[in-house]
Amino acid sequence: MRRLLRVPAARSGADLMTAELEFENWTCPLPLRDTPTVVMGHGGGGAMSGELVEHLFLPGYGTAGAVSELADCAVVGVGSARIAFSTDSFVVKPMFFPGGSIGDLAVNGTVNDLAMAGATPLYLSAAFILQEGTALADIARIAEAMGAAARAAGVRLVTGDTKVVDNGSGDGAYINTSGIGLVADGVDIGPRRATAGDAVLISGDIGVHGVAVLSCREGLQFGTTVASDTAPLHGLVAAMLATGVDCHVLRDPTRGGVAAALNEIARTARVGIELVERDLPIPPEVSDACNLLGLDPLQVANEGKLLAFVPAERTEEVLAAMHAHPHGAGARRIGTCVGEHPGMVVARTALGGTRVVSLPIGEQLPRIC
Amino acid sequence: MRRLLRVPAARSGADLMTAELEFENWTCPLPLRDTPTVVMGHGGGGAMSGELVEHLFLPGYGTAGAVSELADCAVVGVGSARIAFSTDSFVVKPMFFPGGSIGDLAVNGTVNDLAMAGATPLYLSAAFILQEGTALADIARIAEAMGAAARAAGVRLVTGDTKVVDNGSGDGAYINTSGIGLVADGVDIGPRRATAGDAVLISGDIGVHGVAVLSCREGLQFGTTVASDTAPLHGLVAAMLATGVDCHVLRDPTRGGVAAALNEIARTARVGIELVERDLPIPPEVSDACNLLGLDPLQVANEGKLLAFVPAERTEEVLAAMHAHPHGAGARRIGTCVGEHPGMVVARTALGGTRVVSLPIGEQLPRIC
Repeated sequence: MRRLLRVPAARSGADLMTAELEFENWTCPLPLRDTPTVVMGHGGGGAMSGELVEHLFLPGYGTAGAVSELADCAVVGVGSARIAFSTDSFVVKPMFFPGGSIGDLAVNGTVNDLAMAGATPLYLSAAFILQEGTALADIARIAEAMGAAARAAGVRLVTGDTKVVDNGSGDGAYINTSGIGLVADGVDIGPRRATAGDAVLISGDIGVHGVAVLSCREGLQFGTTVASDTAPLHGLVAAMLATGVDCHVLRDPTRGGVAAALNEIARTARVGIELVERDLPIPPEVSDACNLLGLDPLQVANEGKLLAFVPAERTEEVLAAMHAHPHGAGARRIGTCVGEHPGMVVARTALGGTRVVSLPIGEQLPRIC
Repeated sequence: MRRLLRVPAARSGADLMTAELEFENWTCPLPLRDTPTVVMGHGGGGAMSGELVEHLFLPGYGTAGAVSELADCAVVGVGSARIAFSTDSFVVKPMFFPGGSIGDLAVNGTVNDLAMAGATPLYLSAAFILQEGTALADIARIAEAMGAAARAAGVRLVTGDTKVVDNGSGDGAYINTSGIGLVADGVDIGPRRATAGDAVLISGDIGVHGVAVLSCREGLQFGTTVASDTAPLHGLVAAMLATGVDCHVLRDPTRGGVAAALNEIARTARVGIELVERDLPIPPEVSDACNLLGLDPLQVANEGKLLAFVPAERTEEVLAAMHAHPHGAGARRIGTCVGEHPGMVVARTALGGTRVVSLPIGEQLPRIC
């Protein structure tokens, strides 16, 4: 699948640009699947996104890069503090959808990335790339949504930036938020800690955000309106940690959905994961929409849900704590972490067979967050 | 100039969007200059950028916002550490130009924002918004430039994100970097500390980055090639701080140039600033290009220069330290901070008169960084 290619000279003209892509210490093994250019799939959070990081960004960064695991958040030491540091850009289209807006996503997404490292989210940055011609009223609505989401999450927007790109080059607004949070002593949560025997939990219904955006974008009607589940999850995490149970892994299954998140965890920890299909909480309207559109609900993005890996014998304690929290009312166990088939996720079907839940290759739903 | 307007319903269709822009606690005084939409000037780092922050983002964020001064960097407490936190997006066009690339800018820009708060830059995030169809070889070149710049600056790229937008919606690559750095005890640098009697220093030639990008973009020839001055400045700052002199303000004059930076400082600290025109280090090729294009060199962006406000009696000590550093070899005093005309910047001309150096309104050079 991956090949070492002779890299063509960069296209963008001028003699600056004609050098071959040969760097001092590496020859770029482009993460190509027979394409020398960026395709939508590179932004999908699936296999192609991972290849871009592994075979282009990390070699490019060289020793300055430090993405040691496929988590969405780094935990670094600054002075005597353990700081969680995360970044996320939001390009969702349309910017407003049932249940929220790009502003809600921008705050909750980064709050959640910090929360999944067990951090208390504290401060966010907000950087806007605005398209010339976008209504200022729309930007004001987004800013108001961000303020409300930040207050709800207990974080402050302390630094920002605004750029404008010419009409036709942007698309309303793109928003990047980065965030910092404090990780308490002793907290150690990350995908590499997934362990055979862990119970795999989810905090609620699957696939809601993606179907909400898609139905809005495509003008689809499913009888009922599906509203995005966007929500900050650090309060739920705090409730889970307060049980004293050693949560091994937390992950919000955003782009690429539950399938991408679980595959990344399985690969990182070299464990297998076995889901029980009948236990997956897929609401009928999500199921209907996915059937209609040929989507796999496990690959559809969620913005207010988390996956947790906890020692199986403590499952009930953790579920009780989750059920007592508004964002965990629908929590349930959906599977088990196993020693077999390391790196692979399977689902036990209603008929008693198993099927492989594969890492999405590219992107089934572009610009969903 | 600013008016309270009846805000039109947002344009983007659907009944979600038809609500008037009336929030619970404020009515958005749109930062309009007779336009209800985003214009390039909102991204120029001048008056319109400031109005967007003051009249749209901050009211929108409400109590969750905390941009207490017009610095590019927040200093926040996290645990027992004082952390500098900054964000910047880069949309420069073209992505490669004499002297550097968007990758160099993305690292050095955020390193410099941290350095201007007197912080030691430590960790950066890198978030890409890629346009479908962009050559992966170009992205690899950018990643390599970022790695090299990060090594040169002694920072690590610890977390990232990649989104892809459909062809026609993006423009090659947009990059956001956010950064965190450690602020030593006792360091207190910021625009509000500008004091009448301070000497105003600049670390070298003015206007070089803007002219370099412009000449590349517009295919202009000025006899000699002007190469961008992009550089990390935290080493220079460290050398300056090592003198023991109390540096009151540091600022890298990027978008909007020296004029925007000094006007913001003058307004924030309620002081006047008096420049001596003949002392401004404007190289002939910048001067020629500006004459040709009708630009004011004081409004042209720099990416490897800093302004410093230091007690006048310590000027020589600080200049000596700057001259001993590669990025400060051309350092000189260009003016004085005064008690008269608070909020205003003036330049004493060669003929002995004075002219007002005004805050740029919008953007004379779009997409310069």
